Amino acid sequence: MSETSAALAAVEAQYLGDRAARSLGIELASVSSGSVQLAMRVRADMLNGLGTCHGGIVFTLADTAFAYACNSHGTPMVAAGASIEFLAPANPGERLIAAATETSRGERYGIYDVTIRNEAGEVRAHFRGRCARFRAAAQPPTNPGPT
Amino acid sequence: MSETSAALAAVEAQYLGDRAARSLGIELASVSSGSVQLAMRVRADMLNGLGTCHGGIVFTLADTAFAYACNSHGTPMVAAGASIEFLAPANPGERLIAAATETSRGERYGIYDVTIRNEAGEVRAHFRGRCARFRAAAQPPTNPGPT
Amino acid sequence: MSETSAALAAVEAQYLGDRAARSLGIELASVSSGSVQLAMRVRADMLNGLGTCHGGIVFTLADTAFAYACNSHGTPMVAAGASIEFLAPANPGERLIAAATETSRGERYGIYDVTIRNEAGEVRAHFRGRCARFRAAAQPPTNPGPT
Amino acid sequence: MSETSAALAAVEAQYLGDRAARSLGIELASVSSGSVQLAMRVRADMLNGLGTCHGGIVFTLADTAFAYACNSHGTPMVAAGASIEFLAPANPGERLIAAATETSRGERYGIYDVTIRNEAGEVRAHFRGRCARFRAAAQPPTNPGPT
Repeated sequence: MSETSAALAAVEAQYLGDRAARSLGIELASVSSGSVQLAMRVRADMLNGLGTCHGGIVFTLADTAFAYACNSHGTPMVAAGASIEFLAPANPGERLIAAATETSRGERYGIYDVTIRNEAGEVRAHFRGRCARFRAAAQPPTNPGPT
Repeated sequence: MSETSAALAAVEAQYLGDRAARSLGIELASVSSGSVQLAMRVRADMLNGLGTCHGGIVFTLADTAFAYACNSHGTPMVAAGASIEFLAPANPGERLIAAATETSRGERYGIYDVTIRNEAGEVRAHFRGRCARFRAAAQPPTNPGPT
Repeated sequence: MSETSAALAAVEAQYLGDRAARSLGIELASVSSGSVQLAMRVRADMLNGLGTCHGGIVFTLADTAFAYACNSHGTPMVAAGASIEFLAPANPGERLIAAATETSRGERYGIYDVTIRNEAGEVRAHFRGRCARFRAAAQPPTNPGPT
Repeated sequence: MSETSAALAAVEAQYLGDRAARSLGIELASVSSGSVQLAMRVRADMLNGLGTCHGGIVFTLADTAFAYACNSHGTPMVAAGASIEFLAPANPGERLIAAATETSRGERYGIYDVTIRNEAGEVRAHFRGRCARFRAAAQPPTNPGPT
């Protein structure tokens, strides 16, 4: 099996179990090792009080692309954190494309950058995610202490 | 009208128009000027492939608390960006509480910190949001240039 | 030895070996378990082209307070990453105070928030640092892979 | 004057006035419109208690590359904030190269990514900076309010 086929199989398996992504109508657009593109149309139930797509839903699309990209190598990784910059609001009906690429990847750590654009190519948001090797009972900790 | 009543009125108005927040079952738990607490129960359609709450949905809860807190003063603000640290997964059925507080606020800029805990008080995530004064056709730019 | 005395001993030992901090004139102002305050005066050789303190030097002060706070418990931690928001420029001659507090701490992970103010109490920057348990040859990886 | 010549002139002027950068031995390696590469050798007075380059100094190198890149177009911009991921420690004597590229740029906002590598090409850190149009008495605010 080629690297791309293996990546596709890993991402499709993850997508199949990802009820949140599928309930938002997120679709796989393109997959290769370390890179994933997803699409999502902005629905009425995704709008905030300003009538544009809720920033959390934009983040969710980016976060999903990041999660799939960092798991496309077959080694289980979990998101440790992320940051997002909102450049322009996404409008109702707009079809958004999230493109995740691998910025850095080690045995236990990865950094992925995701750009969200509309179909005209206009940037809506930039996202950067950090993932860590999945450990049964560990990072992130289940008992984060005294806080 | 007291400052707290004014904050509550501003937040309730924003919540009323926030279809995304309401479709996720997000509820207002407590509101004062600059501070907002929201609650959300982790539903089956919020789960990712690992069977825990999708990080994007956790972010959306925090982002909503942030948006309401930064608009509780009556001056329209929009989210410019945010970061989140995922400390522990949120489990199905868990009721999450997002508590947003004001870390810094100027005329045109604000920083808000949100902690997400479950009902046992265990921290699930820390979020920091940055907002900017809303301008009709401006920051963030509608045409972010050559990228 | 009390917890505070132990924290002070741990931080003083770290400070003693921290040539970068001392060459910037950074001083210990106050130490307790998980909390550190440092002071630094903005010198002429710290100014950028605008005649205000270089943002990197402001970050260095915050990062140092963070590093000392996360090592104040005696368990070696290393910085994994950080973010900073610059609220206002720091002027030449100004004495800056960085106050680091513990936002979350687990066995292998910690989040610390640092606020930088001048002596009048005006905020110059907000910083959030993430640390991970120090491992001989590990996180962060020495060979971050193909990038 | 070509775009590259104009960028070089803008960056050289900024570098000339940047006492902090020059006192750290930071050098211009390459400049074009929106892109800047800087070099810096890790000196003994840049080391932390672990005997590696202080994270704040690594940040300062990245922040400087970011500042020059976002000002290379001739429009004055100031740093609003930044984040950094430390992938591996930088060792004494190591010559670091910071390469800043333009990820997004609008009239009033820009995002720049900086990668720091050693001469062998090994990544030491990834940095993302956000800048805003410089305004005489404004963003970031000089009176950030009640905090």
